[in-house]
Order: sequence, then structure tokens, then C-alpha cells
Amino acid sequence: MHALKVTRAEDFPEWYQAVVREADLAEQSPTRGCMIIKAWGMGLWERFVAEMDARIRATGHENYYFPLLIPLSFFAKEAEHVEGFAKEMAVVTHHRLKQIDNELKPDPDAELTEPLIIRPTSETIIGDAFSRWIKSYRDLPLKLNQWANVMRWEMRTRMFLRTAEFLWQEGHTAHVDEADAMEETMLALEIYRSVVEDVMAIPVILGEKSENERFPGAERTYSLEAMMQDGKALQAGTSHYLGTHFAEAQNIRYQDKDGAMQLAHTTSWGTSTRLIGGMIMVHGDDDGLRTPPAMAPKQIVIVPMLRGKPEDTELKEYCAALAAELNKKTALGGAVRASVDVKDAKPTDKRWDWVRRGAPIICEIGPRDAANGQVTFIQRTALREGEKVKSTSVARADFVVQAPALLEGIQQQLFDEARARLEANIRADLNTWDAIEAYYGAGDDESDVKGWARVAWSRPSGDDLERVTERLKALKLTIRNAPLQQPASFDQCVFSGKPGVEEILIARAY
Amino acid sequence: MHALKVTRAEDFPEWYQAVVREADLAEQSPTRGCMIIKAWGMGLWERFVAEMDARIRATGHENYYFPLLIPLSFFAKEAEHVEGFAKEMAVVTHHRLKQIDNELKPDPDAELTEPLIIRPTSETIIGDAFSRWIKSYRDLPLKLNQWANVMRWEMRTRMFLRTAEFLWQEGHTAHVDEADAMEETMLALEIYRSVVEDVMAIPVILGEKSENERFPGAERTYSLEAMMQDGKALQAGTSHYLGTHFAEAQNIRYQDKDGAMQLAHTTSWGTSTRLIGGMIMVHGDDDGLRTPPAMAPKQIVIVPMLRGKPEDTELKEYCAALAAELNKKTALGGAVRASVDVKDAKPTDKRWDWVRRGAPIICEIGPRDAANGQVTFIQRTALREGEKVKSTSVARADFVVQAPALLEGIQQQLFDEARARLEANIRADLNTWDAIEAYYGAGDDESDVKGWARVAWSRPSGDDLERVTERLKALKLTIRNAPLQQPASFDQCVFSGKPGVEEILIARAY
Repeated sequence: MHALKVTRAEDFPEWYQAVVREADLAEQSPTRGCMIIKAWGMGLWERFVAEMDARIRATGHENYYFPLLIPLSFFAKEAEHVEGFAKEMAVVTHHRLKQIDNELKPDPDAELTEPLIIRPTSETIIGDAFSRWIKSYRDLPLKLNQWANVMRWEMRTRMFLRTAEFLWQEGHTAHVDEADAMEETMLALEIYRSVVEDVMAIPVILGEKSENERFPGAERTYSLEAMMQDGKALQAGTSHYLGTHFAEAQNIRYQDKDGAMQLAHTTSWGTSTRLIGGMIMVHGDDDGLRTPPAMAPKQIVIVPMLRGKPEDTELKEYCAALAAELNKKTALGGAVRASVDVKDAKPTDKRWDWVRRGAPIICEIGPRDAANGQVTFIQRTALREGEKVKSTSVARADFVVQAPALLEGIQQQLFDEARARLEANIRADLNTWDAIEAYYGAGDDESDVKGWARVAWSRPSGDDLERVTERLKALKLTIRNAPLQQPASFDQCVFSGKPGVEEILIARAY
Repeated sequence: MHALKVTRAEDFPEWYQAVVREADLAEQSPTRGCMIIKAWGMGLWERFVAEMDARIRATGHENYYFPLLIPLSFFAKEAEHVEGFAKEMAVVTHHRLKQIDNELKPDPDAELTEPLIIRPTSETIIGDAFSRWIKSYRDLPLKLNQWANVMRWEMRTRMFLRTAEFLWQEGHTAHVDEADAMEETMLALEIYRSVVEDVMAIPVILGEKSENERFPGAERTYSLEAMMQDGKALQAGTSHYLGTHFAEAQNIRYQDKDGAMQLAHTTSWGTSTRLIGGMIMVHGDDDGLRTPPAMAPKQIVIVPMLRGKPEDTELKEYCAALAAELNKKTALGGAVRASVDVKDAKPTDKRWDWVRRGAPIICEIGPRDAANGQVTFIQRTALREGEKVKSTSVARADFVVQAPALLEGIQQQLFDEARARLEANIRADLNTWDAIEAYYGAGDDESDVKGWARVAWSRPSGDDLERVTERLKALKLTIRNAPLQQPASFDQCVFSGKPGVEEILIARAY
């Protein structure tokens, strides 16, 4: 008996959609490929924004806002960049509608001379501004961030994971040289690790993307890779050292201390609403989402067991006072977020709504609790004892004192569980191509958790790398990244038998 | 001698552009009609968002996010609404670019079957969701808010005041009946008054818009009107009671307690980045912006008078410690926001940068201040004594203790100044059309501060109202609103000589 109609084991993709729907996170919109983010989903994103934004500011970045629409000609400047994005962009061609033959249509007289593109990412328009703002080495580093909606025309969409429009932050910086730009690239990666691991409780492996998986126009791309409960990988964020490619295309030059003109070195890095999808697939269970307390818009939800009787008033007051007391406490570095659910609905429906949304602690307070000065609560990460829902009753004063530690314990528990799963599901013993083929090629049962493999390779390039990618693709595998932490010596390359120079992670991925 | 090259008296519109530019608030972007919001401008907007969002949540609204793009057909549903917006919308017609004859162009094979519109406002797509979400009276009221970018194709743009793309919040709610929806409409207006007056220090007059100035599709529209230093009015926010118009067009119905189906009554209300423009024109002076402390991203900026010598280290430490001490204090309901400007630039350039940006208090700390344990500061609202910049030195401990009261005093001072100006510039004695014509018709000198007039009218409708509007237009005047606070009796209508039934404000406006 579970709160969702489909379990992870039965059908992981269906289960994912069920969580998104039943936890009130988002739904499909009438606009193709775009979603409506509902209150609880938006609350999660806003928590993410608050935590990410604080870290981005604390490391010397300032928020700017650039136009949604980018002139088409801007994309023609950086060849690789346009190649990477041109295939999936929304194009604005008219600026007015008109009734024609009784039908509302784009007005032919209002066609734009130059079409405008809805930003798929903002390197081009921000680079253009950099070229105007940067004159001297004194203007560097220039470190900015933008919170924005972006759009990429995706053929197959899945809520949060891949939608045509999504919300994100994009950092863009310019530096005097490679060393400074690389330091920034790695700083962004560490900011991401901190939010994803410490706030979202998702363990990740940081590493460098292979040559053919780089951001279009980047010199080096780094990623955070997270493991979902079905063993697949999800890229949880990327940070790019762009070298001087964009600086050349857009003429971002500065006068150095000796008066000579130099090209700036730029970086860009982004994280998006995709991470909400990752959080669902890492922490969800067959009863819905389990929200890490640091991410939960409401950490403690108090449901008064109202019965439409005069005692209700007293009960509501008891609950309100409890919430007020809890909100004075501190947990996970911030004020506790407790509130009373006074919606006009059955208490038992409310309980299950909050279970599916994954509120970390759900208090169900009846008249007897109020009379005895106690609190009866459910812990979302210890929902059941056998088949039965497990409720605990404690004295109210004790509950208030213990709540912060309880929340912090849940946060740790979720991270530990996910880390144990990550560690247990990376094979380090598949050191020949045959072994890889035998393991990943056996059967094609999607419900089978196959996890990742860490293998040595000779870091092929160009066509050799393409051939490796093709071989992996036949097994539905992709190269995730070359982890930053590498051993001192390497097995031979699983693809070529040549001496290994690096270890990489291979996995099926979202 | 002033920090800006142009004064308000010389050329108010030019002065406005100078503040936007010199205070580092925003600049024109290469995308026609769109601006780039820079760090200080974005910081102001983020302060606004924080204050507005807190009040919107505290009154029972939840944040959602709806798609940027709305299918064209949605606009055909509400006739008045499409009439009001169809003329100025950005239309997406293609979803891919292609190299054609060596030129990047919209791919003819990727034309959308139905064009998509960049939202000018979201009533249509949110109404569509309401029709799916609302089934019973138990689902009402449904109160949501969205922070988003929207787009209206404006022919003449001016930074912050009128840009093609702008940032805003839009509240959308549904209710069982008119009474509940009207209560919400007025609640939104009060939320706006609170932020605009108490945070932005801009006094406003609340009132109802005339019939022909209503939001397209609204039953009643209310506005906040603020007076700029040139005497013109700026609409600082609007709140609409939409009646059942959108509910009918989009089939938003609920089952009432007796089981009968009823149309919901909806509201919508919005405030935008336009308000930043208003703040500039209310509080700016010939030295740049004067930022109300409640809005200032940095309330106290500390500039160390560095000289590239060994003593610099000690000086920086003194400044950092001062900032840390200040940040522990509370002012205007939040922690004080103080920080040290360590940028590599001349201290005197930094001073003037912060003067132009309007940081409320600028501390200039030299080695002697550090040695004597004192703080030398400039108060932005008392910048000069005669021709000279006025600096005050006090013991550091005293400064830290007094800073909160100083900030609160500046906040009050700015509000009081603006309120006195508003009150002094509303004529209540122009009670005939001749008097109006004589006053507003005299000369056409834009630099002349003419202010507003409060006049009685008979509240004409339809063609009669159009004729009134035309007469006002000849004097460049518009009807702002009918203030909520009305006298007990009225003079005769200035337009028709009929008995007056209401007083309205007329003014030139942005």
C-alpha cells in the first residue's frame, strides 16, 4: 500500500510523472513542451534560488538582467556556438497581430527586419556588453550572474528534466588570463557542489566533460554528475572555461598594465530547474517526494484534526502557537519553517497531500493532543512501521526543542542514503570492453538498475573519440565525465587496449 | 557644481537619462526597445521583489510560474482583451534556424502550425489553468502570483518607464463572488501602497480609473498615482476586478454549496520595473539618485582612502570591522546593509560613483580616522553645505549606534519631501474649464512644473467621456483616477456644468 499508484520498481518513468503530478509540483501547459510550475514546485525552486544566489553573491558576483530576445546576427558570430544551438531556437519574426479574414494572424506589415531569438543561453548578448564595458585590466575580473528563463526547442520533453522553456541562472565572467578564468570555472563548480550536496542532499561527482561533450564554443567543460535511483546519471550543472573564443568573436579586449591590448578569457556556468527533477529521482519513494529539509518550503506542516465543532477554535489556536514557537528555532542555518494547514479539506486528505509533497515532518494535532500539551507527528523519511503509518507523540515542549535536530538528522539521512547508493552502484571492475558489453548488454530491461562504471581510457580525440562514443551508444551508454579525483596509475584503455591516461565515468543518462 | 552634467531644471528628460546612465542602473541593449539592467539597478529591483513578495505571501498568495509563450488562439477568446493587446505583441513563428544561401534564417520547414505570443500579461493562460483547477467552492479563493518577464511592443521606449520587455509581478485570483473579489482587488492595492510608500518612500493617491482607462476586459481598474518632480503623474501599479468576463471566456466555473454551477469572479494586479523609473524621478537630484535606505542594496558604503602604502592593510581591516559591526544592527525592520568598496579605483572616483548611485551614507575612512577610532561620512540627502560637500566625523562607536536612526531618518525625510511636493502641487481651485485651460494652456514650456488638478465631474460615459478625454488631450492632460477618498459634496462638473458626482485627478503623465 503506497500513496502513489505506480512504484519505482514497476515503472520508473511513470513513477516520476506520478510524483510530479501528485506532489503538486508541475503540470503540462497548453504551450507545447512548456510546464506550469505549481506552488510546491515553485517553492522548491525558490529555496534553490535563495541558497544559490547567496553563494554566488558571497563570491563576488553581481546580478544583472539582459534581454530575453537576441538579434539573429549575434548567433552568426561564434561558429561553433551557433552550430550547437541554431537547431532548436524559438524565432520571433513579427511584432503585431491583425484580424485577417476574421482570423487573428501575424500582421504581414509588422515583420521584423532582423528576426529575434529567444535566448537559449546568453553568451552572445552578454559578450557584446563585455566588449563595451571592459577597457582596462582594472575592469577585470568582471563577474556577473543572471536569473532568467531560457528556451530550447526540444522534441521530446519531460517535466523539469527537459522542457522547452526552463528557469536557470547563468554566470558570465571575464578575466585577464587563463589561470584566473580557470580558478573561476572551478569556483563555480564548487558553488554548485555546495548547493547540490549540502542543500539538495544529492551527492555528485565533479569532473571534466570529454571533448565532444563540451559546451558549443568552450575550451573545457566541467560537470557535476548525480545518480538517480534507476542508476542513470543526471548532469546537475556545468561550468565552462571559454578560453578566448567568445572574446575573439565579440572583441572583448583590455589594455594590460603595460598598455598592450589583450583578449579577455571568459567563463560561463549554469544550473536550472532540471535539478528539481533530479531531486525527485534521488529522494522520492513510492509515497511521493521526500524533500530534504534544507529545500522544503515548509519543513513542518501542522494539520489540526478539525471536526467542524466548537472545540476547533481552541485546536487552531494550539496549532498556531506551536507553529509560532517552532518558527523561532533555528535549523540548518536558518529559521525553522513551520506552518498550519487550515485549508477546508479532510485532515486525512491533507496528511496524504503532505506525504506526497514530502514535507519532512507532518504534525497531526487532535483535541486530545491539545488537552495533554503534546504533539503527534509523522516523519516523512520513517513513514511506516511494517504496513502501518508510524506516528509518534511527545510533549510539546520536547518536540519544539528536538525539532531542529530532527530536521538536521533527516537532511543527513537523505544525503547518506543517496551517497551509499551512488557508491554501491559504480562498478570499478569492468576493465575490458567485453566486461562492459557483457554487463550493460545483458538484456534490455529498463527497470534493471545498472549504475555506472569507472573505466580507464587513453583519452582519444576527434574521429577516435567519435568511434568510442558510437560503441557506447550501442549500449545506450554515454561518457559522463573524467572525475577530478584520479588515481596515481591507470589500467589499459578499455576501448583501445592502449595505456590508460585517465579514468572516466560511463553511464546511461537523462 | 553637480555630479551630473545636466540638471532637472535644464532638461528633465535628459536629466533622467543621465541618472539612469551615471548611477549605473541600466543601458540600452542591442535588442530594440529592451534594456540591460546593471548591478545597482538590479539590486534596487531585487529589494523591491523581496519586500513585495513578502507582503504578497503574507496575505495568502502562492507563487506559480506559467509559460512565457501563449498560443495565439488564447487571445481570440476575450474580445476586449485581444483588442487591447493584439497591436503590440512579439510573435514566435519558427522554431529553428537554417543556413540558407550562406545566411542564417528561420527554417521554412520549421514554421509553427499555431504562432506563439510572448506574454504581454498572463490572464489568458492562467485563466485556462483556473478552468481546470477550480471545481468546487472549496477550491476558492485561489490566490496566486507570478514573477516574470513580459513583452509589449512599444514604439517609443524609455528606460524603466516603457521598455518592450519588462520585469513584473502579476497576481491572479479567483473568488466565489463580487464581494470577495473586490476585497481582493483592494487588498492588492493596499499591498502596493505599502511597498511604494513605506519602502520606496513614494507617496501615492489611490483611486479608480475612468471607464476608458480600464485594463482590457476589466470591470473596474484601480491605480496608484505618484507625482514626479516635473509635476507629471506616473501610474505606480494597477489592480483589476475582472468580474466574470474572463471566467465566461475561459469557462472558470465552480459548484457552489447547493450544487449549482457558478462563474468565478477573478482579479489581476501588477507592478513592474517601471517603478524604478518612478523612484528616480521622485527622489533624484542634480547629483544623481537618492536611494531610500529601505530600497538601497547597500545602505552604508565604506570607502577606504587607500594610497598604495603599507598602512593600507590596517585601514582595510578597520573598514571591514566597521562594516561587520554595522551589519549586526537593525534598521527599517531588517539587518543594516553595509559594505566596503575595495575596487581598484581612486577614492574620490568611488565617492562620486556612490553619490550618483545614491547610497544613503558614504563613509570615507582615512588613516587618521582609523588611528583616532572615528568615522567620517557623507549623508546623501545632505550632501552639500553651500558649494562644499559636507563631511561629518564622529567617534566610531557613536556612529555604529546612531546609524540605524540615521537611515530611518533619511527614509522619512525622502518620504516627507515627496509628500510635501505632492500636496503642494495639486490644484483644488481650478473649478471651471476656463480655469483649467488658462492654467495648463499657458505656454508649452516642458520645464514648467504644473502639477495636477483635482476637479469635480459628472462621470460621463461612452461618447461623452471620449469627448472629455479629447478636450483634456488638447492640453496634454489625462484623467489619472477618481481618488478613493472623496468629499461629502461636489462642485459642478468642470466639463459639462452638470452636478458633480465625483472628484478626479487630471494631470500630464508618463
